[in-house]
Amino acid sequence: MGQAMTFAATVLTLYPDMFPGPLGHSLAGRALGEGTWTLDRVQIRDFAADKHRTVDDTPAGGGAGMVLRADVLAKAIDHARTLHPDAPVVAMTPRGRPLTQARVRELAAGPGVTVLCGRFEGFDERIFEGREVEEISVGDIVLSGGECAALMLLDACIRLLPGVMGAASSGHEESFENGLLEYPHYTRPVDWEGRTIPEVLRSGDHAKIAAWRKQRADDDTRLRRPDLWERHVGVRGQPASGAQRGTTDVRK
Amino acid sequence: MGQAMTFAATVLTLYPDMFPGPLGHSLAGRALGEGTWTLDRVQIRDFAADKHRTVDDTPAGGGAGMVLRADVLAKAIDHARTLHPDAPVVAMTPRGRPLTQARVRELAAGPGVTVLCGRFEGFDERIFEGREVEEISVGDIVLSGGECAALMLLDACIRLLPGVMGAASSGHEESFENGLLEYPHYTRPVDWEGRTIPEVLRSGDHAKIAAWRKQRADDDTRLRRPDLWERHVGVRGQPASGAQRGTTDVRK
Repeated sequence: MGQAMTFAATVLTLYPDMFPGPLGHSLAGRALGEGTWTLDRVQIRDFAADKHRTVDDTPAGGGAGMVLRADVLAKAIDHARTLHPDAPVVAMTPRGRPLTQARVRELAAGPGVTVLCGRFEGFDERIFEGREVEEISVGDIVLSGGECAALMLLDACIRLLPGVMGAASSGHEESFENGLLEYPHYTRPVDWEGRTIPEVLRSGDHAKIAAWRKQRADDDTRLRRPDLWERHVGVRGQPASGAQRGTTDVRK
Repeated sequence: MGQAMTFAATVLTLYPDMFPGPLGHSLAGRALGEGTWTLDRVQIRDFAADKHRTVDDTPAGGGAGMVLRADVLAKAIDHARTLHPDAPVVAMTPRGRPLTQARVRELAAGPGVTVLCGRFEGFDERIFEGREVEEISVGDIVLSGGECAALMLLDACIRLLPGVMGAASSGHEESFENGLLEYPHYTRPVDWEGRTIPEVLRSGDHAKIAAWRKQRADDDTRLRRPDLWERHVGVRGQPASGAQRGTTDVRK
């Protein structure tokens, strides 16, 4: 793996010891050891201006909790940008744009990513414009901090780096690669507690198998994730019902 | 913290050393030490039937990758249910229902959660019905395995357990608690690089501040997350445009 291909992950956090955490194991851990990706851990607290190393303050306008200060965050981000000037800076926040596999692929194809992890009530809003930080959400849930979300983002990127997954899994269809859920999988035993593998998958007829899988991906997406299905139908420009057209319009 | 209040987290994984990982630090780590929650790590491989400890096999119908066997997973789940019979069993999979803060609250109010983490191509589909496993997704992205997603789910639950967050953050409004994004936060300094805190937040007028925050939560949700906004409007039964009504119907 040449120098040029190294993916530079940088995390800005109050808990640097949380990293690499799970990414130090399995495929990601091996890839880290081999230099396929690098990890820089930046302690936000190191950029506090006072002797108490204060990183947060009370919310303007009142309310519970504490807010991470823009001036301290900015210094930490500026430092990270000296390490890896070309890596986009993202912040994990429930107010951000939902992460997609398309964005993961873009990030993984780039020089790396610098991930800002919040704690407490969150970030001073001014940091996002003031330092051009992309806000990313990984689900409509509230976490104790951005660290677990950052680990997930990095895991999604790292598995796409050349050489990490091995030849077996490279380039084949999988969930969201075409905007749909993946079809269901089965393996031996053929009969498990009276539940059998669908007949078609045992037929050896590759065309029929491909058609069945496409149908199941379509059906499961439509039933389980009407939101994804509507977007898929809209993107392909197929005729849509009034409701589906309406949704596509609203989302533009 | 009495015995009755302990939240029992169990993870079924091929990489038990990934846990508690980040959850061994900060608030979650302290709560683990205090017995507010417990962690059982179950190695799926221990339930393989052969001397090679095989947990996976090739996909029925052909294709890349390997699929986790239903019979091995079932034995691991059955074992986990002897440990914590009342804890719901969930699997992290991109084919699952998107995790919501409402589901997180339900889980956190219960006896615990048993989380099945996949690797490779995923699970043999029969396990979900065969063992009543709830499929949960944490975003439309592909991970190398379910472990980072499981950490995120557990983090979201643990922070809601009594005593974990402390009094400061208990019971106040936050993202998704009312189906909306949270309003933006600001803190000192009032002027940061020429960017100032919105005037209203410095007014001391609590009614005006509350109104501004509600308006920003509404506006930001509508602009950033039309999907959430449509659901919010639909749930409240307010008049909606044709497009919004259509979407709500489709989702029912």
